[in-house]
Amino acid sequence: MKNMFTIKVPATTANMGPGYDVLGMALQLYNEYEIERIPKGVEFLGCDHIALEENLVYTTMNKVLERYGYKADGLRVVAKQNDIPMSRGLGSSAACIAGGIIIANSLMDDRLSVDDIIRIGTEIEGHPDNIVPAVIGGMTVSIFENEQVFYTKVQVPDALRFVVMIPDFTISTHEARKVVPDHYTKADCIYNISRVAMLLAAMNNGEVEKLRAATEDKIHQPYRVPLITDADKIFRHARCLGAKAEVISGSGSTLLAMIDKENKDFDKRMQAFLNKLENKWEAKVLEVDTKGAQIL
Amino acid sequence: MKNMFTIKVPATTANMGPGYDVLGMALQLYNEYEIERIPKGVEFLGCDHIALEENLVYTTMNKVLERYGYKADGLRVVAKQNDIPMSRGLGSSAACIAGGIIIANSLMDDRLSVDDIIRIGTEIEGHPDNIVPAVIGGMTVSIFENEQVFYTKVQVPDALRFVVMIPDFTISTHEARKVVPDHYTKADCIYNISRVAMLLAAMNNGEVEKLRAATEDKIHQPYRVPLITDADKIFRHARCLGAKAEVISGSGSTLLAMIDKENKDFDKRMQAFLNKLENKWEAKVLEVDTKGAQIL
Repeated sequence: MKNMFTIKVPATTANMGPGYDVLGMALQLYNEYEIERIPKGVEFLGCDHIALEENLVYTTMNKVLERYGYKADGLRVVAKQNDIPMSRGLGSSAACIAGGIIIANSLMDDRLSVDDIIRIGTEIEGHPDNIVPAVIGGMTVSIFENEQVFYTKVQVPDALRFVVMIPDFTISTHEARKVVPDHYTKADCIYNISRVAMLLAAMNNGEVEKLRAATEDKIHQPYRVPLITDADKIFRHARCLGAKAEVISGSGSTLLAMIDKENKDFDKRMQAFLNKLENKWEAKVLEVDTKGAQIL
Repeated sequence: MKNMFTIKVPATTANMGPGYDVLGMALQLYNEYEIERIPKGVEFLGCDHIALEENLVYTTMNKVLERYGYKADGLRVVAKQNDIPMSRGLGSSAACIAGGIIIANSLMDDRLSVDDIIRIGTEIEGHPDNIVPAVIGGMTVSIFENEQVFYTKVQVPDALRFVVMIPDFTISTHEARKVVPDHYTKADCIYNISRVAMLLAAMNNGEVEKLRAATEDKIHQPYRVPLITDADKIFRHARCLGAKAEVISGSGSTLLAMIDKENKDFDKRMQAFLNKLENKWEAKVLEVDTKGAQIL
């Protein structure tokens, strides 16, 4: 490995409406880690509110190194930039896990392939929908079966921008999973099959006007919207401001609106609306990250 | 309308594995109707095994004409070519319905738009997954909700060919629907969401090798395969012969294999295998029809 380098990992949104546990997309919002060779020991800086043993980048790195018979030594990791908020449905844990694996991989002279990184990341995270786009970028479809991950990329229309509306409260993934039913009617099941198929086709064909029908969902969002204070109001307002579609990002608490890039005032007008709500919310316009985790 | 013209409507396959009630595709196998102005009366020729009142082309045409206040008169319809087998899961009823609507539309000087034709056809057929590709051609995603049909096209890789294996026995759609459960586990539901998303992405990206994982299904095929004698054997043999994927066409009884166009012997080798089975089966290699119903 080089004596000093930086790793940049994107935030990711999962589900995208009907694609529960399947769809994901990387966004231009990043965590960055600076890795430096030092004479001895292991130092993690900039995450001082978390004990080293609870730092997901560190524990992931160590797991990977152990698995391949390496031991971390003579290493300083500095969290230079931590823009991905935690427990907000923007893939912060996937970013930490992807970061940890990629740091380990650098220490092992890049012995892991992209498929290895994705497989290990999915094992640690438990599901592939954030890990896959965090590693390869873009919008992705992922399947995890028999300890294998199948994945592919989806074209995203150039005209689309993604507005994340991030609140000051978190939703635990555990809580958000608990409210989702164990069984569905055939009608609800076909409903989501049709929407996810339409979503993939609409993205590939650049049919932005079809995104509203295509992002509807009966599998998780109807159960999760009530967990997110004011989500209903914000969705309605996004629509008034010309959003093409609105969904929960991952299992929340962040909400995501898809807008045309020509809708220049959307974020300012949305922020003005958010400022009147009880909780603190922040609206940010993001583009798709097409590169995934990078070593700079 | 002209004094004489021909209408050509393609066969269609629906579901395509995980896309139950959602996906469809037009194939280069056709019914053709020749329409001719005559001095008086209505004649339907070439369908003499079916009473006029039970001829779906005729009854559909009449329904449409009545709705718009027209009456058929001075008309001869000749079924020139009837290559789409009936009750075999190849969209013969959708082809008859589409044909009937388009004949009516010609009599009404083309007052119906493509969207009108699709909406009326879906009302009559009850579901849009065969009607949409029969009318517009290609592979399609369709949603039917609140009496509206939303649909779009999906790119199909040039390298793909579709082998239909048509038996001498039929499966009634009613019977095939009865065996499909009313409820599914969350796991089965997500299974199909992930496969249909992968199928759309794989088709769009030309990733033929991903079609096997992408055409798996837990919603209808596991329940329907037992209704089709030797389906399991034929699927296994198709795989041995290099098929990229195998699915039930619609609700059967036809089976569909997706193959690379370079797999030149597939149909002959499959036919040799089929000839050894108890029932009579016929294998045909077809290309996607990209034009849909046409007036020649």
